[in-house]
Amino acid sequence: MTTARAVVLDKPLGTFRLEEFPVPDPAPGTVLVRMELSGCCATDVHTYLGQWQTAFPALLGHENVGQVESTGPGGQQDYLGRELKAGDRLFARWGWCGQCYECRTLQPRRCRNRSSSGGTPMPFSGGFAEYLYLNSPQTTFMLKMDTPASTAVLSEPLGVAVTAVRRAQPRLGETVVVQGCGAIGLLTLGLAKLSGATRAIVIGGPAARLEVARAFGADVCIDIDRVRDPSERTRAVLAETPAGLGAELVFGCVGLAPAWLEGISYVRDGGRFMELGLASDTGDVVFNPSTQLVARNISLMGTLGLESYQDAVVAGRILEASRLPFELMVSHQLPLERVGDAIHALNSDYQVDGKTALKIAIAPNGPVA
Amino acid sequence: MTTARAVVLDKPLGTFRLEEFPVPDPAPGTVLVRMELSGCCATDVHTYLGQWQTAFPALLGHENVGQVESTGPGGQQDYLGRELKAGDRLFARWGWCGQCYECRTLQPRRCRNRSSSGGTPMPFSGGFAEYLYLNSPQTTFMLKMDTPASTAVLSEPLGVAVTAVRRAQPRLGETVVVQGCGAIGLLTLGLAKLSGATRAIVIGGPAARLEVARAFGADVCIDIDRVRDPSERTRAVLAETPAGLGAELVFGCVGLAPAWLEGISYVRDGGRFMELGLASDTGDVVFNPSTQLVARNISLMGTLGLESYQDAVVAGRILEASRLPFELMVSHQLPLERVGDAIHALNSDYQVDGKTALKIAIAPNGPVA
Amino acid sequence: MTTARAVVLDKPLGTFRLEEFPVPDPAPGTVLVRMELSGCCATDVHTYLGQWQTAFPALLGHENVGQVESTGPGGQQDYLGRELKAGDRLFARWGWCGQCYECRTLQPRRCRNRSSSGGTPMPFSGGFAEYLYLNSPQTTFMLKMDTPASTAVLSEPLGVAVTAVRRAQPRLGETVVVQGCGAIGLLTLGLAKLSGATRAIVIGGPAARLEVARAFGADVCIDIDRVRDPSERTRAVLAETPAGLGAELVFGCVGLAPAWLEGISYVRDGGRFMELGLASDTGDVVFNPSTQLVARNISLMGTLGLESYQDAVVAGRILEASRLPFELMVSHQLPLERVGDAIHALNSDYQVDGKTALKIAIAPNGPVA
Amino acid sequence: MTTARAVVLDKPLGTFRLEEFPVPDPAPGTVLVRMELSGCCATDVHTYLGQWQTAFPALLGHENVGQVESTGPGGQQDYLGRELKAGDRLFARWGWCGQCYECRTLQPRRCRNRSSSGGTPMPFSGGFAEYLYLNSPQTTFMLKMDTPASTAVLSEPLGVAVTAVRRAQPRLGETVVVQGCGAIGLLTLGLAKLSGATRAIVIGGPAARLEVARAFGADVCIDIDRVRDPSERTRAVLAETPAGLGAELVFGCVGLAPAWLEGISYVRDGGRFMELGLASDTGDVVFNPSTQLVARNISLMGTLGLESYQDAVVAGRILEASRLPFELMVSHQLPLERVGDAIHALNSDYQVDGKTALKIAIAPNGPVA
Repeated sequence: MTTARAVVLDKPLGTFRLEEFPVPDPAPGTVLVRMELSGCCATDVHTYLGQWQTAFPALLGHENVGQVESTGPGGQQDYLGRELKAGDRLFARWGWCGQCYECRTLQPRRCRNRSSSGGTPMPFSGGFAEYLYLNSPQTTFMLKMDTPASTAVLSEPLGVAVTAVRRAQPRLGETVVVQGCGAIGLLTLGLAKLSGATRAIVIGGPAARLEVARAFGADVCIDIDRVRDPSERTRAVLAETPAGLGAELVFGCVGLAPAWLEGISYVRDGGRFMELGLASDTGDVVFNPSTQLVARNISLMGTLGLESYQDAVVAGRILEASRLPFELMVSHQLPLERVGDAIHALNSDYQVDGKTALKIAIAPNGPVA
Repeated sequence: MTTARAVVLDKPLGTFRLEEFPVPDPAPGTVLVRMELSGCCATDVHTYLGQWQTAFPALLGHENVGQVESTGPGGQQDYLGRELKAGDRLFARWGWCGQCYECRTLQPRRCRNRSSSGGTPMPFSGGFAEYLYLNSPQTTFMLKMDTPASTAVLSEPLGVAVTAVRRAQPRLGETVVVQGCGAIGLLTLGLAKLSGATRAIVIGGPAARLEVARAFGADVCIDIDRVRDPSERTRAVLAETPAGLGAELVFGCVGLAPAWLEGISYVRDGGRFMELGLASDTGDVVFNPSTQLVARNISLMGTLGLESYQDAVVAGRILEASRLPFELMVSHQLPLERVGDAIHALNSDYQVDGKTALKIAIAPNGPVA
Repeated sequence: MTTARAVVLDKPLGTFRLEEFPVPDPAPGTVLVRMELSGCCATDVHTYLGQWQTAFPALLGHENVGQVESTGPGGQQDYLGRELKAGDRLFARWGWCGQCYECRTLQPRRCRNRSSSGGTPMPFSGGFAEYLYLNSPQTTFMLKMDTPASTAVLSEPLGVAVTAVRRAQPRLGETVVVQGCGAIGLLTLGLAKLSGATRAIVIGGPAARLEVARAFGADVCIDIDRVRDPSERTRAVLAETPAGLGAELVFGCVGLAPAWLEGISYVRDGGRFMELGLASDTGDVVFNPSTQLVARNISLMGTLGLESYQDAVVAGRILEASRLPFELMVSHQLPLERVGDAIHALNSDYQVDGKTALKIAIAPNGPVA
Repeated sequence: MTTARAVVLDKPLGTFRLEEFPVPDPAPGTVLVRMELSGCCATDVHTYLGQWQTAFPALLGHENVGQVESTGPGGQQDYLGRELKAGDRLFARWGWCGQCYECRTLQPRRCRNRSSSGGTPMPFSGGFAEYLYLNSPQTTFMLKMDTPASTAVLSEPLGVAVTAVRRAQPRLGETVVVQGCGAIGLLTLGLAKLSGATRAIVIGGPAARLEVARAFGADVCIDIDRVRDPSERTRAVLAETPAGLGAELVFGCVGLAPAWLEGISYVRDGGRFMELGLASDTGDVVFNPSTQLVARNISLMGTLGLESYQDAVVAGRILEASRLPFELMVSHQLPLERVGDAIHALNSDYQVDGKTALKIAIAPNGPVA
């Protein structure tokens, strides 16, 4: 029996330690994947900080791409019903069962059978490891991908952006604002321009990311390191909207409650504001539902994660069509030994090895294309 | 030259006084209407209380129905391009010009040429009078009606409900909650049931209004006079929703900021909440955009008044089709002398002559069908 | 081992014969149902006439309601994940697998694993029998119902109408035309009125059915037995639409190609026409795509059967909410011995025992509520 | 009084002759425009051939861009309410009144006050002239443009494509087919890719146009000069769609009835087909509404011209945002003397001066940027 390495976090705020485990033979219905890349995400930071309910010791890494090593007896199919063969590139994520009351009434994020790691026991239940063992087929989403691993790994955040953009429905001729230019902001920006928005204003930083924003379709970039006063920022944004009246659609991709209030000020009468950045609780705001919502006839929408697997399928198609510079997104591929560095960067200034990070991916078996 | 009477409010919190004015000969493009009914609305209360910008002395009454007395030389047409003849029943309201930048970019509520009374100078610029002089055709909406005056007078609030329901889009099979059972709540309830909602829960009071709510399609009524604790109310509402998970759609028709927060608690994951009651500022709330919006994947919508004249046309068609018990809505027809009583009731306990008011209408020329 | 009776059709245009079969013990995952009602539908006529691909001998009856007799070891759940217990009323239909490429890309009607009887071998594979054996859980839809059997049996045709109405989206204020007043026409009419249509014109016959159409919400009925000339019918329909310009939405529920052409003439410029009656090929028409489609800016939509199980869930909710006179729909409950009479009536003049049929249901274990 | 030249067509199939007319002083409300470019369109060919109702002698040219020379006393505003000043670049087209019953019920193409030349009497009532006199403000659409004349002139065909694409709603992840790669096909293709379509297959010719199609976003081009058999073409198109099942959305931009039937064969089950090419009657087809429409659950849509001025406003914004290679569209700028050559080319092989034409524009005052 061969063994392989996986990164284990012992406790909240604990240590990421490389450990050796025997590689399982896949049981019927399950799939063993040789990892290529596992994207690091704010969720991992929340887990590290102990802000989300997690059992410890924990294996992190949920944006996973690898190649099928083997399937259990009887084989297995991907979400689209296609047989999995050894060597197939696979995007995999934990998900929902599709059969409980919540799933069937279109609330899959409340799935009764959901678990953060799909019920997978350690080891090889997370992507920061040489192998990934998908041992819970009922609640695992698997999709064969026909793109390089370094773009396939974006399926998860791109799927989240698909959910947001699909619900917010940019229309031909509209001006959109995107607050924030981290990975989610950039992907949301790109999709908004691909799905109708005629003009996009990005407000974020640092400058290196705004460069990438331009490549993803930003027509105007406002650097928050240079325009530091919120009301000045609002003026700057409005000045770039039609007749100065505000944007038809704003996407919030920052993740701080005060930014949400600021985002509302960018919306024109009758417009829409889709918040997808506030994935964790960053506090309350004082809000006036009459003057800030009703009197302005707006819609304030929120979305957390993928709404349905269809959005991940769409994300896969978009990656394969390759009309955005997705190759700019993975700024760093780090070995298993540097998981701690990755988490630290996401929790501080996004600097790794002297370069601003966009998407950091762990490459457990070495760098890939 | 004949004269006629109109009610004049001298100042905020002032006196409603009947005065006699000469009846004008209509100028080209304008229309003189002999009033039948003018609905009293919370807006009139805000004006009385001095909460809205208004020039004084003021003539109130903006939900107006009457018969065409005469048109200016050259005639005039209603919104649908139909010639107006003496005796035609007409619903009229001030509005927007349809030609400025805001109107043309679908923000008519920001119309640059809008004025609360359509630029009409006194006298006969409000519906609490024997005549109504529509002297500003560019910003006046006029629609011929083929229903009794006592239902035609509902065109304005029904149009507001059309705007809200159309934007919120109840779907076949959905459960809706309506908070509040004043005139707006009841009309919204009725339209929600007519446009897809399969089940409706109404939460409001007093008991007399809940009776009417049942006639407008409520499947479940929760009496706030009996269930006084907000968290108990939330439990009561959720217990009536599918699997106790909340309603797909909630309409807020109360007009108090704390009720808005309560309404959010009725919404299921992925659901929608349309607020149309908070037409005036009743204060701030403490709101958590992460836990109350994003984590629940909901949409919080607000709407103030009619979004477009099309909604008033739709309201007219619905009144003419007569599939809801609209005849229950006008609970009181009062003479010009009692405008003060009407405003007082709307500003206190909605009791007039020992009976709970729904829609109080002023009947300047005596009671009508 | 007990036995029970089932009706067997030996060949196209053959004989319906009652036969006795042993009642199976349900295998794991399967469900044995004691039949209450099985609706007769045009599909059964097509099968009888040999127009559809079917293996013979055949057991017909696919609109099935009964009570759970027993489930296989390990139990079974309905579509919404609710455990099935003996005595539960169950609506059941063959369907699709939900997991192949077609199902996953929203083309379930092309399901690769679909079979007309769900792969169920005889006996007890059709509803015209004392028992129904649901032995193919992967491709069977089951839904617990909380309504009498005589309305629950409408789940299938009502679900088809839900699909059509949901796609066609009647809007508040719109005038709709429904061509045909058989079961599908009446249910479509009712749903159109429940989901936004303000005014409905029904064109069909005979007079007895038009009576029911009125109960389902028809505002105007045009009797094709009295207005026999198609162009006169078009004039009659247009005369009932706003300004004589045609209806915003037309539903075709007749099932004859020439009626489809006639239906187009009822649609106003910019309107929609949803055909759901033409479930089988009744021949070609001569059509001008420029003058009949493009120059009129219309949409011609077609739908065959349920689009997704969600529509059947919605149908169930609507039956439970009971806002339409569904109790008028099952005009005849016939014993197993009279299956031939039922099929004959559907294939000729819809007369059974001197009464016009709407929905004929077979009641294998005797009449039910 | 100065004079200027205009091209006059004396009768159907007649002669285009240059004539000199006095240039009018604009009356109140009207605008005099010095022409820059007037696009030639199939409509002009229909007029030339006598296929459309037109009064002769006639002045053609309805895709007009020029600079404001002067406005009548009192000035004039563009559609968005912006004052017109001398030198402003203006796109202008005849249209509808916005105030009759048809306009108000969203059927502006049936406007009661519409006339093909806006009621404008000769001379200077068409764009093939040195000046354009907009003497019918009520039924003229005017929009200030901030782009070069050679792209501003595309406002009309681009607006038509906006109408079609907006109604057909391409969605993220979808594959679209565009039949035809004339001006309308190319613009529709570009907009489909800008508003959600992930992959586009173009089927058309000749090769030079397919080159431009690639620049407008075509992922696959099928040359009808090389694949001449319709059923082979269908196979070729299907082979490029997901799983060979057909495209979610097809745009018909050819203008021949048989092509419409062929286009239906490209659509997947549940898909949509928007025809915008069949602007004139090219004959009947034999169509089976059961097998070609209902059994495939598809939607067949048609659209003729602009649905509303909003679509022209959107077109203007898209031209200004300049995200498509619009500069490739005007292939020829011809002087007034060559109007006949332009019409002849559109009516034959689209060759002018040895080069395949896309959009031919008349440049009455000499070539422009």
